[in-house]
Amino acid sequence: MTRVLVTGASGFVGRRALVALRRRGLEVHAVARRPPGEQADGVAWHAADLLEDGARRALLEHVRATHLLHLAWYAEPGAFWSARENAPWVAASVRLVEEFADAGGERAVLAGSCAEYDWAAAQPLREDAPLRPATFYGVCKDATRRVAEGLAERLGLSLAWGRIFFLYGPEEDERRLVASVARALAAGERAAISEGSQRRDFLHVDDVAGAFAALVDGAVAGPVNVASGEGVAVRRIAELLAQAAGRPDLLDVGAVAGRPDDPPEIVGDAGRLRDEVGWRPGFSLEEGLTQTVAWWRDRERTP
Amino acid sequence: MTRVLVTGASGFVGRRALVALRRRGLEVHAVARRPPGEQADGVAWHAADLLEDGARRALLEHVRATHLLHLAWYAEPGAFWSARENAPWVAASVRLVEEFADAGGERAVLAGSCAEYDWAAAQPLREDAPLRPATFYGVCKDATRRVAEGLAERLGLSLAWGRIFFLYGPEEDERRLVASVARALAAGERAAISEGSQRRDFLHVDDVAGAFAALVDGAVAGPVNVASGEGVAVRRIAELLAQAAGRPDLLDVGAVAGRPDDPPEIVGDAGRLRDEVGWRPGFSLEEGLTQTVAWWRDRERTP
Repeated sequence: MTRVLVTGASGFVGRRALVALRRRGLEVHAVARRPPGEQADGVAWHAADLLEDGARRALLEHVRATHLLHLAWYAEPGAFWSARENAPWVAASVRLVEEFADAGGERAVLAGSCAEYDWAAAQPLREDAPLRPATFYGVCKDATRRVAEGLAERLGLSLAWGRIFFLYGPEEDERRLVASVARALAAGERAAISEGSQRRDFLHVDDVAGAFAALVDGAVAGPVNVASGEGVAVRRIAELLAQAAGRPDLLDVGAVAGRPDDPPEIVGDAGRLRDEVGWRPGFSLEEGLTQTVAWWRDRERTP
Repeated sequence: MTRVLVTGASGFVGRRALVALRRRGLEVHAVARRPPGEQADGVAWHAADLLEDGARRALLEHVRATHLLHLAWYAEPGAFWSARENAPWVAASVRLVEEFADAGGERAVLAGSCAEYDWAAAQPLREDAPLRPATFYGVCKDATRRVAEGLAERLGLSLAWGRIFFLYGPEEDERRLVASVARALAAGERAAISEGSQRRDFLHVDDVAGAFAALVDGAVAGPVNVASGEGVAVRRIAELLAQAAGRPDLLDVGAVAGRPDDPPEIVGDAGRLRDEVGWRPGFSLEEGLTQTVAWWRDRERTP
């Protein structure tokens, strides 16, 4: 029996990952500092702060999972790129991998990031592209991977590292790009964006969650891009959202200054995910953005 | 008043660092899991396991040091290059830096290693040489530096990272190269070594300790090689030891097979240490090795 422990289970990806793992018929245990009130069917929830050594160890000893999906990290929108709060997650993640293996764990999948790559490298970024994090978040994810992979080798643990690119979908924090534009449009408000020529690789959150579930349920080791393989201009995303909302008049392109250091392109090569993990996204960008706008419209209507 | 907390204080470098720091007139606090019975004058000892979150935090809160010299790490001769025990030291070191700053710390000096560098890079290795650790020990030291430097920047902490090359001296663990040869020669036993053509950068342990004391007592930030700047063939080291012992007949060069993957040269550029930190070694290699043989001879004579 495969028993998966999912960390960060109350987060944007975590909530969907629980569903995706249950669909695969796995026994799912979820941990968060504060488990949500509404809980997905058939998931055993645990409350623990993984940054606390004692709590983390007690949880691992209690659950004795065979598989681990480690999504937990500091994720405050905007702040996470540079915050000191990234550092304790390096420490907690390294100890988590070690303690999970010691408690009988067999396979671990950890969430990495496109922020580990040298963004100036040739696009799309393959998993063996040069690593040169431009942010402290990227430095901390990269350091965690280096240590976790070496540790896994020594502990006989199978370990995969899913590098998340960009994502969107219902229930996203509205301080984040796609959510802020979708919410504004759904509410009939003006949505101001930059020129938006920078190209990014976006996946629907259900697809990100689905890719992680496939990784957990498979045997591929090492870094794997959790990406669509397609670069889309941010402006195009906004236009698709406006189209789905039926309000192209609300979109104010170029009203906000772009960041001069924003890389022109961050796109992942999705070959490994497609060919080795055998996984493909379920949503086209048009479908996913339409569904996202519909979700925000429902929310705006709910008093 | 400068109050230094020294971790790994009962170790090979740590014991000497306490003396070097006291000579500079600093208030010295030392921590080890098991403080030694014989203690240097004027040093306040504390017993704590730094791998335990609670113990580490309590120590930092209790001592409230302004300066930190972090030498503690897993150091079992031979095993340390590849052991899983390196990983928890990444976690503990990252948390230590953070908690030290939070407890009012101003400057931290951490022990790094020449094992962080790409050993195939141009010699002597400058601090900006490419990093490509060949060992798990090197991976873990390198990951710790990356995170600790970013953290220090965010916490307003002054941080230096001393990359230790090779070292020798009295009281070294006799499973290590120089000590094993010196002990054998002092005992009148045959000393078998490899061809020993590989060139290494050796400092006397008192000089390594002195360099770290100068780093603690200074303001230079970032990586600094703790190195002599001179490459010496391992065979030459053995010959100097045999000469000092007056027993060149006991040296059996080439009797042991060399490791095929042993890099031909690992030498540090000592320019930063000399010019920016303003520190120079006190021992010539001849003096240091002669003193080391004399120490082993005394020990062999003591019943």
